[in-house]
Amino acid sequence: MTPPLVAVTMGDPAGVGPEIIAKTFADPDFHARNRALIVGDAGMLERAAQLVGLPLEINEIPGPEDAAFGPGTADVLQVGGLPPDLPFGELDARAGDAAFRYVERATRLASAGRVAAIATAPLNKEAMHLAGHGYPGHTEILADLTGTEDYAMMLVTDELKVIHVSTHVSLREAIERAQPERELAVIRLAHESMRKLGVESPRVAVAGLNPHAGENGLFGKEDLEKIRPAVKAALEEGMDASGPWAPDTVMMRARQGYFDVVVVQYHDQGHIPIKLMGFDTGVNVTVGLPFFRTSVDHGTAFDIAGTGRADHASLKAALDLARTLASAEVGG
Amino acid sequence: MTPPLVAVTMGDPAGVGPEIIAKTFADPDFHARNRALIVGDAGMLERAAQLVGLPLEINEIPGPEDAAFGPGTADVLQVGGLPPDLPFGELDARAGDAAFRYVERATRLASAGRVAAIATAPLNKEAMHLAGHGYPGHTEILADLTGTEDYAMMLVTDELKVIHVSTHVSLREAIERAQPERELAVIRLAHESMRKLGVESPRVAVAGLNPHAGENGLFGKEDLEKIRPAVKAALEEGMDASGPWAPDTVMMRARQGYFDVVVVQYHDQGHIPIKLMGFDTGVNVTVGLPFFRTSVDHGTAFDIAGTGRADHASLKAALDLARTLASAEVGG
Repeated sequence: MTPPLVAVTMGDPAGVGPEIIAKTFADPDFHARNRALIVGDAGMLERAAQLVGLPLEINEIPGPEDAAFGPGTADVLQVGGLPPDLPFGELDARAGDAAFRYVERATRLASAGRVAAIATAPLNKEAMHLAGHGYPGHTEILADLTGTEDYAMMLVTDELKVIHVSTHVSLREAIERAQPERELAVIRLAHESMRKLGVESPRVAVAGLNPHAGENGLFGKEDLEKIRPAVKAALEEGMDASGPWAPDTVMMRARQGYFDVVVVQYHDQGHIPIKLMGFDTGVNVTVGLPFFRTSVDHGTAFDIAGTGRADHASLKAALDLARTLASAEVGG
Repeated sequence: MTPPLVAVTMGDPAGVGPEIIAKTFADPDFHARNRALIVGDAGMLERAAQLVGLPLEINEIPGPEDAAFGPGTADVLQVGGLPPDLPFGELDARAGDAAFRYVERATRLASAGRVAAIATAPLNKEAMHLAGHGYPGHTEILADLTGTEDYAMMLVTDELKVIHVSTHVSLREAIERAQPERELAVIRLAHESMRKLGVESPRVAVAGLNPHAGENGLFGKEDLEKIRPAVKAALEEGMDASGPWAPDTVMMRARQGYFDVVVVQYHDQGHIPIKLMGFDTGVNVTVGLPFFRTSVDHGTAFDIAGTGRADHASLKAALDLARTLASAEVGG
């Protein structure tokens, strides 16, 4: 089967995005496994290829249908144009605006079915804000541009997979977000995503909100009143859902293989275990959009941008996962 | 140096406490490293020794000063008396009452300086409640009996050490507990405890409450308004404190050796990483009492009580740590 076409957005060009893309596409075997093109700036990629010292031919294309996927070649959909001496590692409104435009263009292509999925290099939120795009991050841009309401952040490693009821809100607000409708929506997203990852009947564990999942209401009522009804509803819909489980033990049990994915209630309930286990090749997936979007797990790394030292393992993993998920989408 | 004397409380006699104590004390080398006695029921220990099939001589003593520490011998301070056929693995008010009395007696001995520290086998909260002792757990009994206000739960493993601002309360209540005075008190407890564990100038990291430690107030103000002032005050007192750090990365960095101990804001912020890393020989320490109290990391395990299968690694680790901490106490 021909692999599905993935658009890689370049992220903030003052960060490590261009470098990790250059390293990834310069691999002579890359196009044997992937069909992928870049949405970004050809000049920035050229500069990145030079600084990492790898031979990479840049092929500017007008549309995704023109990508040639030649070995050692990067097909680039040019968006805008940045000065070749854009400083590395500095907040720059031009770079912030460009990063936003890359995502916007890729989203339009994916929404129109011209690419099957998006893998994103990191953008810098502050640079994007300087350019007048007030989004908290990629996920919100994608949800807004596609009019999506039920989406969630999933973190995927070999050992553990978690999907978040809420992410970038205060802990106080996270407690308010734990409502039955949202819980059920995230359980459904967990179920569907794991099916696309090849698990026929996914075992979805839902972590509680409070210590010991509230210990029968002794430490908070949310587990009984908000989460348990959603688990019950999911069971009635035929999903293999369970919980709410004590948050500390459910992670351990999921890692031991008792569950395929854990629904987590707030940012750090999911991020602490994933990062602690060494999230080197972990991938951040936005699920619930009309298409899949995967992302590297790191930021723009302004401190090392331009040195060529950035590791591209996470981008490779993000591309692998985008391919797997989009293949299932096409297949299913 | 003669090791300090540690009182081991038997916990709920219907649980695995007697078995793990029998296994620990039957080790012929045990008394070479430890000076320890048991506060509990000699009959229950006798029965446990028989079921684990290890030779153990039971020596009932009237007071801690009478302990002989003979190889293969367990010195037992008898408290009350239980029927020899007390059922294993069942909630029983007699067992719950006994478990409470063991802790009470050990606390009196420690408060009077007749033992240097306490290591506790697990009690069953429900059984204790059946007997009319309405405490949530060991920690609250100890704090109450000693009139202690500033205490904290510390979880200790080789790779990671965490100390909790709050534990067995709802997440909503945990947010309210994150107040500057409490934060500073816990930073001080972290500093003092690590010094007793042999770290001369402990690097105390304070985890934030909100995702990304609030990202400058964008995701909640508590990190700026409640935690940061406490870190500043700790620095002014000469402690090496830092934070608030993003909760997900601080765990990873502590594990990598950048910090000696992490102050965590709520139960699962500390328990998720510790349990995930395999808390087989982890120890739960109550710090801030007039003496140190260590505890096994597991419960009464009613499902396997009476089979002799319970692992005593955690009790051994709890005794090791009690000895280390109490030695420093004596030394300092």
